[in-house]
Amino acid sequence: MSQTVTDFEVHDIRFPTSEQLDGSDAMNPDPDYSAAYVVLRTDAPDGSDDDGAGIEGHGFCFTIGRGNEVMAAAIDALRPYVVGRPAPRTAADLGALYRELTHDSQLRWLGPEKGVMHMAAGAVVNAAWDLAAKHAGRPVWQFLAEMTPEELVSLVDFRYITDVLTPDEALEILRTAEPGRAERAERLRAEGYPAYTTSPGWLGYADDKLVRLAKEAVADGFTQIKLKVGGDLGDDVRRLSLAREAVGPDIRIAVDANQRWDVADAVEWLTVLAPFDPHWIEEPTSPDDILGHAAVRAGQPVKVATGEHVANRVVFKQLLQAGAVDFVQIDAARVAGVNENLAILLLAAKFGVPVCPHAGGVGLCELVQHLSMFDYVAVSGSWENRVIEYVDHLHEHFADPTVIEGGRYVAPSSPGFSARMLPDSIAAHRYPEGPVWQARRTPEEAN
Amino acid sequence: MSQTVTDFEVHDIRFPTSEQLDGSDAMNPDPDYSAAYVVLRTDAPDGSDDDGAGIEGHGFCFTIGRGNEVMAAAIDALRPYVVGRPAPRTAADLGALYRELTHDSQLRWLGPEKGVMHMAAGAVVNAAWDLAAKHAGRPVWQFLAEMTPEELVSLVDFRYITDVLTPDEALEILRTAEPGRAERAERLRAEGYPAYTTSPGWLGYADDKLVRLAKEAVADGFTQIKLKVGGDLGDDVRRLSLAREAVGPDIRIAVDANQRWDVADAVEWLTVLAPFDPHWIEEPTSPDDILGHAAVRAGQPVKVATGEHVANRVVFKQLLQAGAVDFVQIDAARVAGVNENLAILLLAAKFGVPVCPHAGGVGLCELVQHLSMFDYVAVSGSWENRVIEYVDHLHEHFADPTVIEGGRYVAPSSPGFSARMLPDSIAAHRYPEGPVWQARRTPEEAN
Repeated sequence: MSQTVTDFEVHDIRFPTSEQLDGSDAMNPDPDYSAAYVVLRTDAPDGSDDDGAGIEGHGFCFTIGRGNEVMAAAIDALRPYVVGRPAPRTAADLGALYRELTHDSQLRWLGPEKGVMHMAAGAVVNAAWDLAAKHAGRPVWQFLAEMTPEELVSLVDFRYITDVLTPDEALEILRTAEPGRAERAERLRAEGYPAYTTSPGWLGYADDKLVRLAKEAVADGFTQIKLKVGGDLGDDVRRLSLAREAVGPDIRIAVDANQRWDVADAVEWLTVLAPFDPHWIEEPTSPDDILGHAAVRAGQPVKVATGEHVANRVVFKQLLQAGAVDFVQIDAARVAGVNENLAILLLAAKFGVPVCPHAGGVGLCELVQHLSMFDYVAVSGSWENRVIEYVDHLHEHFADPTVIEGGRYVAPSSPGFSARMLPDSIAAHRYPEGPVWQARRTPEEAN
Repeated sequence: MSQTVTDFEVHDIRFPTSEQLDGSDAMNPDPDYSAAYVVLRTDAPDGSDDDGAGIEGHGFCFTIGRGNEVMAAAIDALRPYVVGRPAPRTAADLGALYRELTHDSQLRWLGPEKGVMHMAAGAVVNAAWDLAAKHAGRPVWQFLAEMTPEELVSLVDFRYITDVLTPDEALEILRTAEPGRAERAERLRAEGYPAYTTSPGWLGYADDKLVRLAKEAVADGFTQIKLKVGGDLGDDVRRLSLAREAVGPDIRIAVDANQRWDVADAVEWLTVLAPFDPHWIEEPTSPDDILGHAAVRAGQPVKVATGEHVANRVVFKQLLQAGAVDFVQIDAARVAGVNENLAILLLAAKFGVPVCPHAGGVGLCELVQHLSMFDYVAVSGSWENRVIEYVDHLHEHFADPTVIEGGRYVAPSSPGFSARMLPDSIAAHRYPEGPVWQARRTPEEAN
């Protein structure tokens, strides 16, 4: 029985979210949440996909609109590395694919290991994980958590991080967590993983909507919410004050500046916001500014979080080395997929810094829950002080959407990476030819 | 008279350089030097382009082959920001275009300010500089060096660098250099700008070719050459020893590892190479690893240089803050064009660190000479300890190629950025449809 990747489809999918100001913040006033989406088709028979074809691997990059076609072109550039290849199954297969995509000497010039080309590699790597986990009949978190420490270490590219984490140290971290895996997996299935919600806090929402949504979040069982800040200091003080009043003193309120500030601005602004006890400040400045984050952390009392725009493990390594962050915010689709995120989870574990993933957008909650759950079961062994971001947008477009109960992510049980978008959603939102976008064309554009 | 950008052409141009191992190094064994090339056409009449059309602006990103089509797609995504716009003329115009391209909230998500999308912005910004300088009838170095300190400061995006360099400090640097501008411009025209050559040292060259080319370089007047290292320590010792014997003790020999090492490898390897007195070690490790470069610099005696793959001014800022580099190696086409390189020149001047640009590839010598010459005339005011890289490949494809005399770059006198590739070269090397590539198709590909 031949089991080969036979085809590679790329779709430019966009949602007109800017119309509602969902997702609006100090740097991103009008995002149209989008995905450059890849499907790996195979001739491996399976019933898990409802179209009767072979097992498929689904993956994507998240963008906020313009340029999604560039991401799609970058994913398409990876087609020759994948089509005709045996369907990846094992840690060895997945390690080899990741290395080929990120080490190709010519493509590497376009980063290296950053930006469009690196995110494209991440989409394909994640699609391969979806495929392999489906073949194994496991959700990705469990597929990972059943690998041996040696297999997990073989997935990681240690290049440029051995000054801080060697393969032996990684093995030691994973072996230490090994005895408790079964017990924690059971507890995870029973209790779910802690979440927080950003839905109340978009910058474009009116005060009454903010207050209403904040109260609803608490009623729904969330113990942490997040507000966007950084547009106007007076507005931030008012909104944070209203939110604190709405949720009371025991609910954590994180704030997120989306890279709005220089170092001195951040220190000054946060000194004013500190009395409202923000749980963390997220992205106070450029995601490339390791020393800047360290200065912001040293210069005011609010704890510092970043990571959703951090390009790769080398920058995360330095954020940890420099003592620049209190929380590491991985993103499932910014770095080169599961493999690179595994390196980042191990780096964070080495430093004892909690990982609190970025999510939201299109499908980011669906993906990243698997990484935090795996981290709990087999890496850090803890969910203390850890939460996965949750935003209640666009889940209806996924075949295996996240389930939140009592402010916690329910552990996925379906095989794969929860990455599969519904065929009708893909068809409707393809850009620019899908009906959702055709209906929005101006008369001039339609001619 | 209307003077508008009327059209925007993008070409995927590749040269089959891998066939000769030109450009081979420890990380890039078989580069096909390529350019994603953009032409801004206008309706501004001028005789400076020989096709009789309006003044054109030419710009490009350099890549090493695969993925050049992704760069072309990224440049194409910028078309709506340029076509229909008044042809840029002034510092204000060029500052506005740069900010629009790098601050677009949706496109910014694809970096931010790094990788494919950022290099594409650089190509378009540089094409706009070519256009504006042609309109002014000046080579770009002179066009820049005739701007007031205030105009120059207005070109810079100080976001994320004010903790190290404020607009007032930048103005002070530029004002200090102002009185000597005319004298230095005259000296530059008379003497040219110091260069060094990498042509002897490609990793794929045999020892006798290395020795012959090293001796030729000295005979040609170069006082510095560069060798690629990092493949095999024994080979490096032999090659460095042969080169030192060929050129004698007074010629500088820089070495370049092209990101091959982790920190400990770099320290160990360089400790062995140090007795051969390498002038600098270039790219010892990941271009993202600021703290790693600082550790390499502290851990062994060879001076450290990097920059050709440094994504933006924020990373350069930190390399300087951390005392991680002895030489700043700007690249004309990696960051967002002249504007961002101006920020980097100012940061280097603030720290008193010499700028020694990366060049070579396709057209990078042609572009970057303008930036070093401007730096000499109007920013640092010095060429002591400063050299521009020179590689003698592919200049024949340019309408206004670099001229090297006695180991120095002759100051360009033609208007523009020396960026214009000859129409026949473009036609021959378009990928995959140009005759150079059609002739290389296998029988299978041709069917």
